[in-house]
Amino acid sequence: MSEPAGPSRPPVVGVDVGGSNILARLVDPVSGQAEGRVKTGTPVDGPDAVVESIVETVHGLEGWETAQAVGIGLPGPVTPGGVTGPCPNIVGWDEPMALADRLSRRFEFPVMIGNDVNCGALAEHRLGAGKGYSDMLAIFVGTGVGGGLILGDRLVVGPRGGAGEIGHLTVVAGGRPCGCGGFGHLEAYAGRAGIDAEMRRRSAGDANRFLLSLVEDSPLKSRHLAAGLKADDPLTITLLEEAADALARVIGNAVTLLDLPLVVLGGGIVDRLGDAFLAQILESSDFGGFGSGSAELVLAQRLDDAGAVGAALLAADSIGYDNGQ
Amino acid sequence: MSEPAGPSRPPVVGVDVGGSNILARLVDPVSGQAEGRVKTGTPVDGPDAVVESIVETVHGLEGWETAQAVGIGLPGPVTPGGVTGPCPNIVGWDEPMALADRLSRRFEFPVMIGNDVNCGALAEHRLGAGKGYSDMLAIFVGTGVGGGLILGDRLVVGPRGGAGEIGHLTVVAGGRPCGCGGFGHLEAYAGRAGIDAEMRRRSAGDANRFLLSLVEDSPLKSRHLAAGLKADDPLTITLLEEAADALARVIGNAVTLLDLPLVVLGGGIVDRLGDAFLAQILESSDFGGFGSGSAELVLAQRLDDAGAVGAALLAADSIGYDNGQ
Repeated sequence: MSEPAGPSRPPVVGVDVGGSNILARLVDPVSGQAEGRVKTGTPVDGPDAVVESIVETVHGLEGWETAQAVGIGLPGPVTPGGVTGPCPNIVGWDEPMALADRLSRRFEFPVMIGNDVNCGALAEHRLGAGKGYSDMLAIFVGTGVGGGLILGDRLVVGPRGGAGEIGHLTVVAGGRPCGCGGFGHLEAYAGRAGIDAEMRRRSAGDANRFLLSLVEDSPLKSRHLAAGLKADDPLTITLLEEAADALARVIGNAVTLLDLPLVVLGGGIVDRLGDAFLAQILESSDFGGFGSGSAELVLAQRLDDAGAVGAALLAADSIGYDNGQ
Repeated sequence: MSEPAGPSRPPVVGVDVGGSNILARLVDPVSGQAEGRVKTGTPVDGPDAVVESIVETVHGLEGWETAQAVGIGLPGPVTPGGVTGPCPNIVGWDEPMALADRLSRRFEFPVMIGNDVNCGALAEHRLGAGKGYSDMLAIFVGTGVGGGLILGDRLVVGPRGGAGEIGHLTVVAGGRPCGCGGFGHLEAYAGRAGIDAEMRRRSAGDANRFLLSLVEDSPLKSRHLAAGLKADDPLTITLLEEAADALARVIGNAVTLLDLPLVVLGGGIVDRLGDAFLAQILESSDFGGFGSGSAELVLAQRLDDAGAVGAALLAADSIGYDNGQ
């Protein structure tokens, strides 16, 4: 049976607030199908201006007044009460702010705030590689490593909003320094910044400077790693093996603790290296859970506007919409 | 306001099926207060006899016919559909059996099956050290290491029933052999059997045989570790440091992934070593979560008949009782 054109029930608005742009979409709360699309530049004069810009962006969406809730995804910590920040990628947002309260006074409908990575994980669960699974972990490997956990068809945010910080799980006791000040965290092994720093440390005392010669003084990119692999550069191969092992260990532990049947992997490095990198993780002896079985490991589907759509789905969940699975 | 004597609503039955005894209690589904207590020896002629004995034990409880559900805790894997086993501690229960189906045909009310360690964690959450917390991890350190995870006031069993297997999380890649066939698992570092095996390995090539001289050919007991500590035996100190570090690492990772505000620690070794062992875990550099803050680490309250009461609470949850928090 084909669906009638357009949303068949009152829509929800999803907003993705990034360092460069604020993007709003009107989304069907069950199918996740998105309509309308408004994008504005993120103000650089602090969070008050960002709040105004969020409101204007939503008001720019045709049909926004028919919405029954609005979800906002932000690149920073979010408490369950909707206190948000600091957001290092947004100029001037250096302190936590009661964003949900502020926005609730501006909209006629409920406001739900989420972390942007969590929103991306929720979109992947409902519309992407996680479709049909009640439980999954999404890991996004970019400059850093973020994640989102879905248990029983719901995003797990934790009682203080801090759940899913998969990049800061310890994989090697006393291991590589992490950007957060800790040691041996997954992000230091699998994130681009961590691989970059380790590449420079090892290149300093090594005759092999192939990767360094590609990167020079700029930050390491996923394409440099792809080029290093293509050239059979031993340092690139080692660094990616260590990244795969670290991911395998964290995935194996999460699968064992939570009995997860599915892990979805995305982000810049994964998008670039694809199935070969997945195969490397699967081959690691640390991969796989104990007991009721291992997990499938699949690539994320890189959905359009996943942050905005995920924020809309989070808002739909918060007002009690079933996800239709 | 004081409660009236006796349950103020229809009770639930909780049954703890162990290797030696089957214990049944009549439990108030909200307060967890237990009345009546019947204990029978566990049959040694296979699971069919155990099923009969469970039914007889419940029927021996005064007032069992007023119950609205029965929960059963078993020492083995349990699927969400109530398929149970193998249970290595119960003679002859070598294969999975559809226990929930079998028992549903014998009782007039809903039957819910759970893993015994999970039931103990649930009791600790509702009535013990976890009271008032929506999210917690319970870890029980004995011969092995088991656990139970509570998120949003609900026991997490996982889509295949395998969640909470905290003892088989990897803490050291390629580390000590674990009883399950894996390597570097928490249980190999913190469980009594794992410590025992490591003690024998190290004593073989060492002039210091203090701990071995206490234990001789019998299995290591928690009291041996307490005696070794009292005598400042270096091997005992090292083994317990390694156990504390392994626990700290697993706890830190679980707290980071799930934003847990509370970890409850119990079981033979912990009961014996008490706060000093907790302090050792807290001092480890790996303890503590990232982001929204660390967790409290507290001793379990060693509730009476925690397995049976927890099984009853599981059954109460399954028929939709709120836990009253």
